[in-house]
Amino acid sequence: MDRNDSVDGDMDLYDTHTYEDSMLDDRADFGTMSSPKLVDLENGSTERLLTEHSVLRRGGSSFPNETSQTAIIGVKASHIESLDYEIVENDVFKQDWRSRTRVQILQYIILKWTMACLVGLCTGLVGYAINMAVEYIAGYKLSQTTSFISDRNFYGRYLIAFLILAGSNMVLVLASAVLCASFGPAAAGSGIPEVKAYLNGIDAPNILSPRTLIVKILGSIGAVAGGLAVGKEGPLVHIGSCIASLLSQGGSKKYRLTWQWLRYFKNDRDRRDLVTCGSAAGVSAAFRAPVGGVLFALEEAASWWRSSLLWRAFFTSATVAITLRVALSSCTGDNCGVFGSGGLIMFDMGVISTETGISELVPVIVLGVVGGLLGSFFTFLSGKILRVYALFHSRYGLIGKLFQAALVALVTSVLVFGLPWLGSCTACPTGISDECPSSGLSGKYKSFACEPGYYNDLASLLLNTNDNVIRNLFSIDTEGLYHYSSLLILLCSSFFLALFTYGTAIPSGLFIPVIIVGAAYGRLVGKFMRSYTQFQSLDEGIYAYLGAASLLGGSMRMTVSVCVILLELTNNLLMLPPTMLVLLISKTLGDLFNHSVYDQILHIKGLPFLVEKPEPYMKHLTVMDVCSSPPVTLSAIERFGNIVEVLKLTDHNGFPVLDHSSEVPKLHGLILRSHLLVLLEKGGSECNSVDFAKPGSGKGVKIEDIKLESEQMNKYIDLRPFTNASPYTVVDNMSLAKAFSMFRQLGLRHLCVVPTTPEASPISGILTRHDFMPEHVLGLYPHLRANKWNRLHVQPSA
Amino acid sequence: MDRNDSVDGDMDLYDTHTYEDSMLDDRADFGTMSSPKLVDLENGSTERLLTEHSVLRRGGSSFPNETSQTAIIGVKASHIESLDYEIVENDVFKQDWRSRTRVQILQYIILKWTMACLVGLCTGLVGYAINMAVEYIAGYKLSQTTSFISDRNFYGRYLIAFLILAGSNMVLVLASAVLCASFGPAAAGSGIPEVKAYLNGIDAPNILSPRTLIVKILGSIGAVAGGLAVGKEGPLVHIGSCIASLLSQGGSKKYRLTWQWLRYFKNDRDRRDLVTCGSAAGVSAAFRAPVGGVLFALEEAASWWRSSLLWRAFFTSATVAITLRVALSSCTGDNCGVFGSGGLIMFDMGVISTETGISELVPVIVLGVVGGLLGSFFTFLSGKILRVYALFHSRYGLIGKLFQAALVALVTSVLVFGLPWLGSCTACPTGISDECPSSGLSGKYKSFACEPGYYNDLASLLLNTNDNVIRNLFSIDTEGLYHYSSLLILLCSSFFLALFTYGTAIPSGLFIPVIIVGAAYGRLVGKFMRSYTQFQSLDEGIYAYLGAASLLGGSMRMTVSVCVILLELTNNLLMLPPTMLVLLISKTLGDLFNHSVYDQILHIKGLPFLVEKPEPYMKHLTVMDVCSSPPVTLSAIERFGNIVEVLKLTDHNGFPVLDHSSEVPKLHGLILRSHLLVLLEKGGSECNSVDFAKPGSGKGVKIEDIKLESEQMNKYIDLRPFTNASPYTVVDNMSLAKAFSMFRQLGLRHLCVVPTTPEASPISGILTRHDFMPEHVLGLYPHLRANKWNRLHVQPSA
Repeated sequence: MDRNDSVDGDMDLYDTHTYEDSMLDDRADFGTMSSPKLVDLENGSTERLLTEHSVLRRGGSSFPNETSQTAIIGVKASHIESLDYEIVENDVFKQDWRSRTRVQILQYIILKWTMACLVGLCTGLVGYAINMAVEYIAGYKLSQTTSFISDRNFYGRYLIAFLILAGSNMVLVLASAVLCASFGPAAAGSGIPEVKAYLNGIDAPNILSPRTLIVKILGSIGAVAGGLAVGKEGPLVHIGSCIASLLSQGGSKKYRLTWQWLRYFKNDRDRRDLVTCGSAAGVSAAFRAPVGGVLFALEEAASWWRSSLLWRAFFTSATVAITLRVALSSCTGDNCGVFGSGGLIMFDMGVISTETGISELVPVIVLGVVGGLLGSFFTFLSGKILRVYALFHSRYGLIGKLFQAALVALVTSVLVFGLPWLGSCTACPTGISDECPSSGLSGKYKSFACEPGYYNDLASLLLNTNDNVIRNLFSIDTEGLYHYSSLLILLCSSFFLALFTYGTAIPSGLFIPVIIVGAAYGRLVGKFMRSYTQFQSLDEGIYAYLGAASLLGGSMRMTVSVCVILLELTNNLLMLPPTMLVLLISKTLGDLFNHSVYDQILHIKGLPFLVEKPEPYMKHLTVMDVCSSPPVTLSAIERFGNIVEVLKLTDHNGFPVLDHSSEVPKLHGLILRSHLLVLLEKGGSECNSVDFAKPGSGKGVKIEDIKLESEQMNKYIDLRPFTNASPYTVVDNMSLAKAFSMFRQLGLRHLCVVPTTPEASPISGILTRHDFMPEHVLGLYPHLRANKWNRLHVQPSA
Repeated sequence: MDRNDSVDGDMDLYDTHTYEDSMLDDRADFGTMSSPKLVDLENGSTERLLTEHSVLRRGGSSFPNETSQTAIIGVKASHIESLDYEIVENDVFKQDWRSRTRVQILQYIILKWTMACLVGLCTGLVGYAINMAVEYIAGYKLSQTTSFISDRNFYGRYLIAFLILAGSNMVLVLASAVLCASFGPAAAGSGIPEVKAYLNGIDAPNILSPRTLIVKILGSIGAVAGGLAVGKEGPLVHIGSCIASLLSQGGSKKYRLTWQWLRYFKNDRDRRDLVTCGSAAGVSAAFRAPVGGVLFALEEAASWWRSSLLWRAFFTSATVAITLRVALSSCTGDNCGVFGSGGLIMFDMGVISTETGISELVPVIVLGVVGGLLGSFFTFLSGKILRVYALFHSRYGLIGKLFQAALVALVTSVLVFGLPWLGSCTACPTGISDECPSSGLSGKYKSFACEPGYYNDLASLLLNTNDNVIRNLFSIDTEGLYHYSSLLILLCSSFFLALFTYGTAIPSGLFIPVIIVGAAYGRLVGKFMRSYTQFQSLDEGIYAYLGAASLLGGSMRMTVSVCVILLELTNNLLMLPPTMLVLLISKTLGDLFNHSVYDQILHIKGLPFLVEKPEPYMKHLTVMDVCSSPPVTLSAIERFGNIVEVLKLTDHNGFPVLDHSSEVPKLHGLILRSHLLVLLEKGGSECNSVDFAKPGSGKGVKIEDIKLESEQMNKYIDLRPFTNASPYTVVDNMSLAKAFSMFRQLGLRHLCVVPTTPEASPISGILTRHDFMPEHVLGLYPHLRANKWNRLHVQPSA
């Protein structure tokens, strides 16, 4: 094969390549040395090396990887990189590690926990602030609208009320859209897919930047207060992750927020752990569900998990819970809006009688099946919508985005104001504890345009904040409160609005709209079942609750975390077994049709997400079948000029370092592009571990910034102290599936392929994330696509 | 170094070793062939190979691994092996995989889920049965005792009552001890450490055998009904795991319970997953805490976790919850004992008013600190006791075990019957809803030996089932029910009994005794705080609850799972933030002093448990520093006689297979001892994947059982189709820490070390679990122990 030929051809050059023995220091020698060795070689090998590397060019490998290296972050295509989770065990690292005193190690541990605590504290406070802001803004808006509607002395009262509602919605949503489109495009959408991608090892610019954080907070307030069918849960997960990332970067250089004592944290591993905690804190703050938050981080957000991380995420979540509790305890009476009166349980369902047994299984199964089908249908439609909107946004730019956002706000306003007119006025029931018609904002009996003593049930389900709608739907012992027609109108309009809003360039969470749709259909099913069948043991509120659970299971495909979140949302522990059952059924059914709504977004955005298991056909390929080879290598003692050239000519991020001191070249290890750049920038002066600390995303040195004098270019540097001498390797006949498992489970960025038989070069290739992507593998072997995993007969190239 | 010399010396033999080209089939050829190739080589290489292997002997490597290969299972020393979690990607596997139809794959998936469901169903039913048996036996015993005490017409009533109590306790405990000591020694103790060890990849005989299952069920009933300070939670985790293991092995050959259609499950990976689900089911059944069960499996039991496993464990837990719910719904009134009336929540604490804020932080922190200190002290003492008992048991054998068990039963009986006499009789309070004195078994106001209208508070805390004691301690709105003296006596006696009972050769869970001790001290602290300080906002029952949480955190060192288990036990969601805080404090404090109580047992029993993170000093060693080398290798085409000899001379479980067809030997892969044994047993006839299915623990073929004719011994077999051609490898200069991470995270049994520079042999050594054990590494490099991780300057041997 020509691939093997090219390996030999390239590597023959090395066979004649020997350095003087004088330069071959003992490895132990380097262990205590941290400044790069500069060596002036005055012989002819300089030119030879230069020539050797000059033949390299992009795509010069025999298997060019055609996978796109860009993805859509927010609504913008961006270049993406991988994160370095692997510990770079070079001499600098080891020396740094050795030189740390016990006090410093203790400092580091305390720092880690302080960070986790800070993330919890900040996320809790931000969550509280968003909630308060939404409560006040939306509350003021709705109270104005309602007061105009009920002001019987005024002629054009309905028009004024509508204009107030629609106008404030438009202003709020447009403000959010402007912020999002012009300042922080990465803040658009839920944010959960982006956090998932980051925790999978994908580094895209701005996904966790301070700017994104600010836009997400403000935009989320605007969108939710603007009455759209969006939640603040996804955004809060993103916000928690941004806070974690910001803290772990030691602040932001750009905004002059840097702390030197945070330097121990300047590596991707610690950042990843903290961002995981941040995502847990987000859910914890959004739903006041600390355990649910930990489980969300574990089940949905994180790709790697360690037992110690469970504990740390739990700590962060506990901090959020305690922060919220303390903040809430300052709320007494009505001075905190609905938020205050709810206490720690957002949608408390109260004490539920449970004299039920096997007979409740039937409704539970019915709800699970319907929820699973509806959820996967929702996912399918949302994917289509997202594609259409993305096309629209890319064609019409900023104006298109703003127009679409304004349209969504207008349509939403028209629907929530217009549809209640279809509802009829019902006389207030007697003998109830609730006020009827409700005077405040949070009651179940909204008077809307009815006479005194009457209420409009549809108005309390539409012209209300999302949280109140859910609270009303989950309310128990309120049989007959809502008419069939009201529930049906709510179901259709909320389903339409959830889809129509999805993909708008504003921060928009999916949980709340899905819960509303689910609760509406659940209550509808419940009303029907209780009227026409013998399954009357469950309350309509319980049906609504189970309906919400089933739709969450059918679209998000989470099990344990959604179960615990719902439990913590409703304080409804006795419903645990049916909730589990409904989630299992709906998730199973949903998985038959498509991927979860978040995985779908990952796919549409083109993020190279590494799934947990290798594709079945990967068993029949070896690593050399997909690997670009030969790799671009560097010598242990290398000329500055060559390094610059290699960095300019390739965009690889890791280079094997070969030791040519003995007869045959020996693989010394792998050096990172970022470390080479630091070495070049320092130009050979003293380097320590602080210099090699990973900067924030996109903030590292670039090869274009480096200007070296020609004298400097001819100097030699010993790369060995800076080389990761323990790179992970696989042998060249390793099956791709097992290499995939290793790459994924260890969270690698580079995986070196070494030959099983002695060859000219001690390294045959390097595998990166893109080599494992199904798109790349199927691009090379299209026949694998055709017959999928079944009856595969690939002949591995010998 | 002599190590390198011996590598060269050994491997020089291979250099002259070539087969005829005719035998060198293309690899693709083997892909479609599954019967071993028999080759008669009539040349002299037979003798040469024989001589070569004859020089091998146990401990012949330059670094003999002195780590013990035995551990104490139950109370017996047993030989231990590792489990094969790695997928053996040989040609047989690939062909089997390719030949599976879609229907078969669907069958496999359905089987997996059916299994998970069955495990949940069986564990739920067994848990229910144990509970019912305990309720009836202990209930009958206690009601007899109480009725004699209160029978005022009878002279020797107290003596008779004591004899009934002590006698039945002795009989029950002795029955349990006899069963345990003579039939199933592996059933002694909690069982959680054994399950943890299994899930970490340690295979010890009988830990999950059917016999252990039976003994554990019956023994647990005896021990708990016998009134000992033991719980049924640990045993139920073990029972769940045993059921899972039994089902996944396709039944037990020994007891003629085998199903052929279960053969797809015959590998360690699927078994591991199912056993993880089983452990979740155990907790779920014990505490009726399904989510807590999943989290327990994740946090404490499992060493490896996948997102899909979360879902499956959740499914199993849900099955348990639904099974229990249906079973419980058949209980109405008193016909199921206390168990029936409790419903799904075991220790329901009812509605708790929560007008608290920052002021509750102080008591929570106090409880957390005390619980952490007390918990680690408990762990420390229990370790000492366990060692003393183990010594006693090993010296006096069966008689010693029975004597000690009888003594424990006697002392327990004396204490629970004798101590209530120290309590005073209190007049029944007026205006309470509970009956006083209680006539049934479950009330808070036991009359014991008091006059009518009076009750003895100490009797309700001692002369009662463990579950009722906890329920009484957790009861709210019962201020002043228990005196200081009563709580103090309960605390001391339960602390003493928990320690005294621990280590007895009976199935004994730790959760319940720890909860009792914790609740007693918590209530004591609460009584004090409410009387003498200003922190009066929390109820005494809440103090008891938080005290139990703190002691669990301080001894078990679990966070999320204990938190959720407590939540599900008490239906007390509003207490979540303080519970989280108390657990965090107590765990942190406990960790400063010693390991968790389960890790301590693992250590005492000598189980080679691989912890999650490498020891810090491992960074300064390379894999070759600890690896036994050279490995014993086999040729791709090997003589039966040689295989037999190698298997007899070594106890290795994996052998590298070298391909000598080309000029230099090439590493083809790794073949397992168990597969070689199957090949020998079949003697060259057709083999398929079913033959290679992993048998149950300790049930595989042994080399001693294999008798081959001398004609057969001279035949040759091509090992390549049966060799795992994709073994995981590391290069020889890899740091031990990173190799450890890889070994642990991928769940390996063998890790091949390949040379970085071309050497005579393509494999330098094999790393196994024992090579990574700190005992082994520190045995080789004792100076690492002295200066620990700080200021380490190890010079890796060049």
